[in-house]
Amino acid sequence: MDVPSIDPRTGATVEIVTTETTTAQVDEHCRAALAAAGPLDALGREGRATLLDALAEALEAHRDPIVAVADRETALGNPRLTGELTRTAYQLRLFAEVLRDGGYLEATIDHAGDTPMGPRPDLRRMLVPLGPVAVFGASNFPLAFSVPGGDSASALAAGCPVVVKAHGSHPATSQLCFDVLDAAARKAGAPDGTLAIVHGVRAGADLVAHPAVRAVGFTGSTAGARALLAVIEGRPDPIPFHGELSSLNPVVVTPLAAADRADRIGADLAGSFTLGAGQFCTKPGLAFVPAGPDGDTLVAAVRAAVAGMTPAVMLNAGIAASYERGTARLAAATGQSVGEIAGETAIGTGLPLLLTTTAADLPPEATDECFGPVAVIARYADDRELFDALDRLPGSLTATVHRGPGETDLPGRLTRRLLPRAGRIVFDGYPTGVAVAWAQHHGGPWPATNTQHTSVGTTAIRRFLRPVAWQNAPSDLLPAELRNGYRRISRRVDGVLHPAGT
Amino acid sequence: MDVPSIDPRTGATVEIVTTETTTAQVDEHCRAALAAAGPLDALGREGRATLLDALAEALEAHRDPIVAVADRETALGNPRLTGELTRTAYQLRLFAEVLRDGGYLEATIDHAGDTPMGPRPDLRRMLVPLGPVAVFGASNFPLAFSVPGGDSASALAAGCPVVVKAHGSHPATSQLCFDVLDAAARKAGAPDGTLAIVHGVRAGADLVAHPAVRAVGFTGSTAGARALLAVIEGRPDPIPFHGELSSLNPVVVTPLAAADRADRIGADLAGSFTLGAGQFCTKPGLAFVPAGPDGDTLVAAVRAAVAGMTPAVMLNAGIAASYERGTARLAAATGQSVGEIAGETAIGTGLPLLLTTTAADLPPEATDECFGPVAVIARYADDRELFDALDRLPGSLTATVHRGPGETDLPGRLTRRLLPRAGRIVFDGYPTGVAVAWAQHHGGPWPATNTQHTSVGTTAIRRFLRPVAWQNAPSDLLPAELRNGYRRISRRVDGVLHPAGT
Repeated sequence: MDVPSIDPRTGATVEIVTTETTTAQVDEHCRAALAAAGPLDALGREGRATLLDALAEALEAHRDPIVAVADRETALGNPRLTGELTRTAYQLRLFAEVLRDGGYLEATIDHAGDTPMGPRPDLRRMLVPLGPVAVFGASNFPLAFSVPGGDSASALAAGCPVVVKAHGSHPATSQLCFDVLDAAARKAGAPDGTLAIVHGVRAGADLVAHPAVRAVGFTGSTAGARALLAVIEGRPDPIPFHGELSSLNPVVVTPLAAADRADRIGADLAGSFTLGAGQFCTKPGLAFVPAGPDGDTLVAAVRAAVAGMTPAVMLNAGIAASYERGTARLAAATGQSVGEIAGETAIGTGLPLLLTTTAADLPPEATDECFGPVAVIARYADDRELFDALDRLPGSLTATVHRGPGETDLPGRLTRRLLPRAGRIVFDGYPTGVAVAWAQHHGGPWPATNTQHTSVGTTAIRRFLRPVAWQNAPSDLLPAELRNGYRRISRRVDGVLHPAGT
Repeated sequence: MDVPSIDPRTGATVEIVTTETTTAQVDEHCRAALAAAGPLDALGREGRATLLDALAEALEAHRDPIVAVADRETALGNPRLTGELTRTAYQLRLFAEVLRDGGYLEATIDHAGDTPMGPRPDLRRMLVPLGPVAVFGASNFPLAFSVPGGDSASALAAGCPVVVKAHGSHPATSQLCFDVLDAAARKAGAPDGTLAIVHGVRAGADLVAHPAVRAVGFTGSTAGARALLAVIEGRPDPIPFHGELSSLNPVVVTPLAAADRADRIGADLAGSFTLGAGQFCTKPGLAFVPAGPDGDTLVAAVRAAVAGMTPAVMLNAGIAASYERGTARLAAATGQSVGEIAGETAIGTGLPLLLTTTAADLPPEATDECFGPVAVIARYADDRELFDALDRLPGSLTATVHRGPGETDLPGRLTRRLLPRAGRIVFDGYPTGVAVAWAQHHGGPWPATNTQHTSVGTTAIRRFLRPVAWQNAPSDLLPAELRNGYRRISRRVDGVLHPAGT
């Protein structure tokens, strides 16, 4: 079956990129990936760091054609896509830095000795690559969470060959990025089979079922994740599935924050939930704003900002249709007429929308993610109404608190209540914009993710590694990092942390 | 329904310990655990370290009655159970040390700054407790992997209240340990609800389904794990399940090792696979021994050692019956008569058994775990036969290589082949005996475990933690460990590791 590239601005098919990958082809890619696993690991940390740097450079060298095709397929616009390519190259280079640092190996040495339990053998532990990894490209990040994205970067850094399932929403971008990366990887000495790409829904399922595949990185819908999890449960050997699925990203504005800067919060909140046509995992979908005049001012500021916006082209027709259904459902649940507030929407476009309700009568629909430029503001009369409503929230990637100048009491209580429900707590800011950094975490209780690990930042590598312990191993058979006298990475020796170089 | 305590030496019911926990009682325990989560976390690292030390002390203070009831329920014998209690207290104290060290928090700080992607906010990350944890006691470790075992110790260290599902094979031991720990915990200032115990199969399923429970630690059969995983998949919010399930633990003896010390390896191997009536997750179930005279000597040494052994009492009637079926199946698959080799076995007892086959004709049955004092020796004619057979092995907790003096070539190739299939590589030793240490790893590819984490050693705590990032948080609202100037734990600041005190 053909794989078309569709322009979401017109709905027209621009080109046929390729044909869907057959089961036999998926098998071939996975076998090649398995064969590449040993040699890729054997490149060592410095070899893979060099490889990642080469991939970053190749992406930047092909910036113009990549951004052009990505814009044509996603309508995200050149500035956003240029920034996304920069971020994508940055995270490849950051993982090169992670490799050179070596701390991610968690190298640990316990020399043989006596314990209250009796003699202990010599034990040495570090993390090793899992093997070939399946990476599912995301609709909303054609670069940073797709073929050359964070999952691929962290898996390759870990030493795992990567087979990417291209997202059907941007197959030409995926194929071009793959071609650029594959050529650069070969030039940098990566073994055959280090990278592969497959197209089509069935190819994705075949990939997850393939015995050579040892882990899955997925960014997409809860329904898609449930379907792939069913495939995994059917495997003789279920494998780790790291899914980033759905997130409401609640925002709480305290009365003192509203009193201090209602206008600014309103305008910035509108900017955050409409950014990228609201198609971010971190879009704030629900904001709690105090009842009363300051809150009224804030809501009016959001309304004013939204009223000035034009409908945005959404990533694809499916997402646009889903946005129409989702906003109609939300409007009905909050007792508002979507026609009245939204006017007519063109096919494939999403009109930015603000809906309002109260914390006391918060409808369950308002606690589900609705992908697109819509947010619900729930007004609360007092702390009790606010905290009761917070108890009904699902797990999210983020939770945000806007506080008054120097305010700590209510923000402290809010933090404690939000912490079990979120992976990142943002103060006096907005959850959109996920910095790629050592201290970043992008994950959270289900449905935000189904994993205790992150998909952004340096520790994303941990998803594709597993520990191995060597017992009484001769030095020659140990990885270099676990031999006596190795000083280039931090290690814990007999319970004590030794930084690199000591 | 009554919960009986059965003496496996006689098959007689000695006492009725309690009644099975009802769904309503499970709910009550889980709600109490949820209420305890905040206060237990608020005890802080030093508070919980003190708690763990108190639990260790209480166990040792009640050593005699605990060992007596455990021996009556498991027939494991006083020396083994005394050692197991020592190990159990040791691991509680080791987790107190982990808490005081604080490195497990993975505290990471990135100050605000400029990056090639634009300005980065202040980001601070560390691991926080998941919430209440369900722990399933294991049949084969009434102390070290049951009520006061490694799962409970690591979960409490993490700051997670624990609800233990008592194993039906040793309910009186479980209840006594719980009573001792619960009293000690209260005395040490642990909040109400920190510890609870439930009895009965339905109570176990209720526990895993309960919304307050945030993770499961399980040691048991693959079938039991699949059943509980189905309960988890049915939850609106699937939670992490850390299962330690089944392990073959292959052993390879190189020709040079057999030439060097066939007699000793044979005798020690027999000791390892019959230890504790073969009821260890790390029992070596399959050993590859070279064809030829040295291998013959080795096999004769195993036979001689096994011939001198008496039938062992197994943990319970179900395990004894399963051992009878499993050994009959193995004997049939390897073309041997179980009657001929095993003689008559008494109910509830397991006769140590050695079966032999060849690597070239290795039957699939020989690559499944058979719980009990049985091992299969597969003779190999050359490297090709050996390596072909290794490719057919499932994931295991361990893999062992016996090598000749100073031999590295074949052991090196074996290590590379075994590494993707095991979590611990043992050289010139035996996999039984799992040291509790910083560098230990007890886990491996399915069916060994279904997790990338370990259930033994200090990093077992990682199963019950998840990362959280704080963005632009005021210092007052940060955990102490993430504030500027905190020096008591190691932290990564702006990408550079700073050991404690620096």
